[in-house]
Amino acid sequence: MKKLSALDRVRVVLSRPSHPGNIGAAARAMKTMGLNQLWLVSPASFPDPVAEARASGAGDVLAGAHVAGSLQEALSGTVFAAALTARRRDLSLARSDPRAAAAELMQWSRDTCGEVALVFGNEASGLSNEELGLCSLPVTIPANPAYPSLNLGAAVQLMCYELRLAAMAQGGGASFLPVESLPEPATHDEVEHFFAHLNSSIVASGFLDSAKPRRLMPRLRRLFGRVRLEKEEIAILRGILSSFDAGMKNSQQKQ
Amino acid sequence: MKKLSALDRVRVVLSRPSHPGNIGAAARAMKTMGLNQLWLVSPASFPDPVAEARASGAGDVLAGAHVAGSLQEALSGTVFAAALTARRRDLSLARSDPRAAAAELMQWSRDTCGEVALVFGNEASGLSNEELGLCSLPVTIPANPAYPSLNLGAAVQLMCYELRLAAMAQGGGASFLPVESLPEPATHDEVEHFFAHLNSSIVASGFLDSAKPRRLMPRLRRLFGRVRLEKEEIAILRGILSSFDAGMKNSQQKQ
Repeated sequence: MKKLSALDRVRVVLSRPSHPGNIGAAARAMKTMGLNQLWLVSPASFPDPVAEARASGAGDVLAGAHVAGSLQEALSGTVFAAALTARRRDLSLARSDPRAAAAELMQWSRDTCGEVALVFGNEASGLSNEELGLCSLPVTIPANPAYPSLNLGAAVQLMCYELRLAAMAQGGGASFLPVESLPEPATHDEVEHFFAHLNSSIVASGFLDSAKPRRLMPRLRRLFGRVRLEKEEIAILRGILSSFDAGMKNSQQKQ
Repeated sequence: MKKLSALDRVRVVLSRPSHPGNIGAAARAMKTMGLNQLWLVSPASFPDPVAEARASGAGDVLAGAHVAGSLQEALSGTVFAAALTARRRDLSLARSDPRAAAAELMQWSRDTCGEVALVFGNEASGLSNEELGLCSLPVTIPANPAYPSLNLGAAVQLMCYELRLAAMAQGGGASFLPVESLPEPATHDEVEHFFAHLNSSIVASGFLDSAKPRRLMPRLRRLFGRVRLEKEEIAILRGILSSFDAGMKNSQQKQ
């Protein structure tokens, strides 16, 4: 049986790529650095002979690519996601750079033996705010401010290079054994269910007007995105929310 | 007059490139990292509309490219040259990696105020032994041994990225992320007041029996202790708790 290395647990997710050539370039870039899990969210054209030509000797990565209908779906089952973003956004103050982000991704993957994701947006429009909100760590490549527009394949190459270096630094890229005593991390889906619960409780309390949500949920996502929530912690937080829910329901019934 | 930065003194030399698309990709990769001196040794086709298309917004780098008849000519006037090579050669025992090579190139450039060169060979055949002999430092990108063949544009992107990082590290040159806008962290007292508030809300909700507190608050402290809460986040969290408190108080008054 093939030994699963840390790099095997990294999903490279391209969200809504417009140009099949870039999908091929991404596959080639991944394989040169030892990555192989390519995920495509609603690609404009796939499969496509242009992608195959650009993939060169990485046709196997392309052939094994997963196609998903949404970023949510592509992240399902992962324990951590980093997202590439060139733009400055109000809430992305905790942005990381490629080197630090690669170290963090590999650390997550090693500590949890879970899958992690590196998400790239559309060539022209990048990632939507909603897509960014699904990822814990925004990453910005330190580019020339006068012309920061890296080609998608080049950005994938650069990030995969940093991931390979991080994997080599952590342990030769060999399979990492699970550390039994570490608490089990929450999955992406569990975290999303927590956010949905939190949102509905806050709306019920009247603190958040769902018609005028302002920036509240994005801020809370940023806060909890930094924590690496554990499975048990999600259970506790949702227990607390449920007890608030029950208290408030009680109140409404009596009014 | 434009200030000549350290990156302006780096020549990116492509020796005998076969595909004009790769010349365009290299120009784009260079410009995204703030480099602009492109040198072409006996290109198969230049200028070429395919190169222009792939250069995207880096047409100026392409337009300013120098065409030379030999590598010797392209290196004339430089004080140091590094050469990319994927293959092991008898004489390349002192091979460097991209990070160390970038640091060395920038160091040479800074110490001498002279020009330095980074040389890439033909897509299929790489650099000849004679060409390698003209360069002081062979550099190998740490690629997947099973598939080490990076696209030329991707290799240029990766090396220019390392050069930019090296220049930033040496020069106190523009740090690309604004530092002044970092959010203000919460003080110890603010965090403690939040925990006290959280505790009393949870007791009020009935989720925590203050006579039998179990391990709940220590767990929540561990969770929020990992986050490095910001001042504004404390305000938001306490606002949410207050709205829960109000909802539940309402309920109790009516009982």
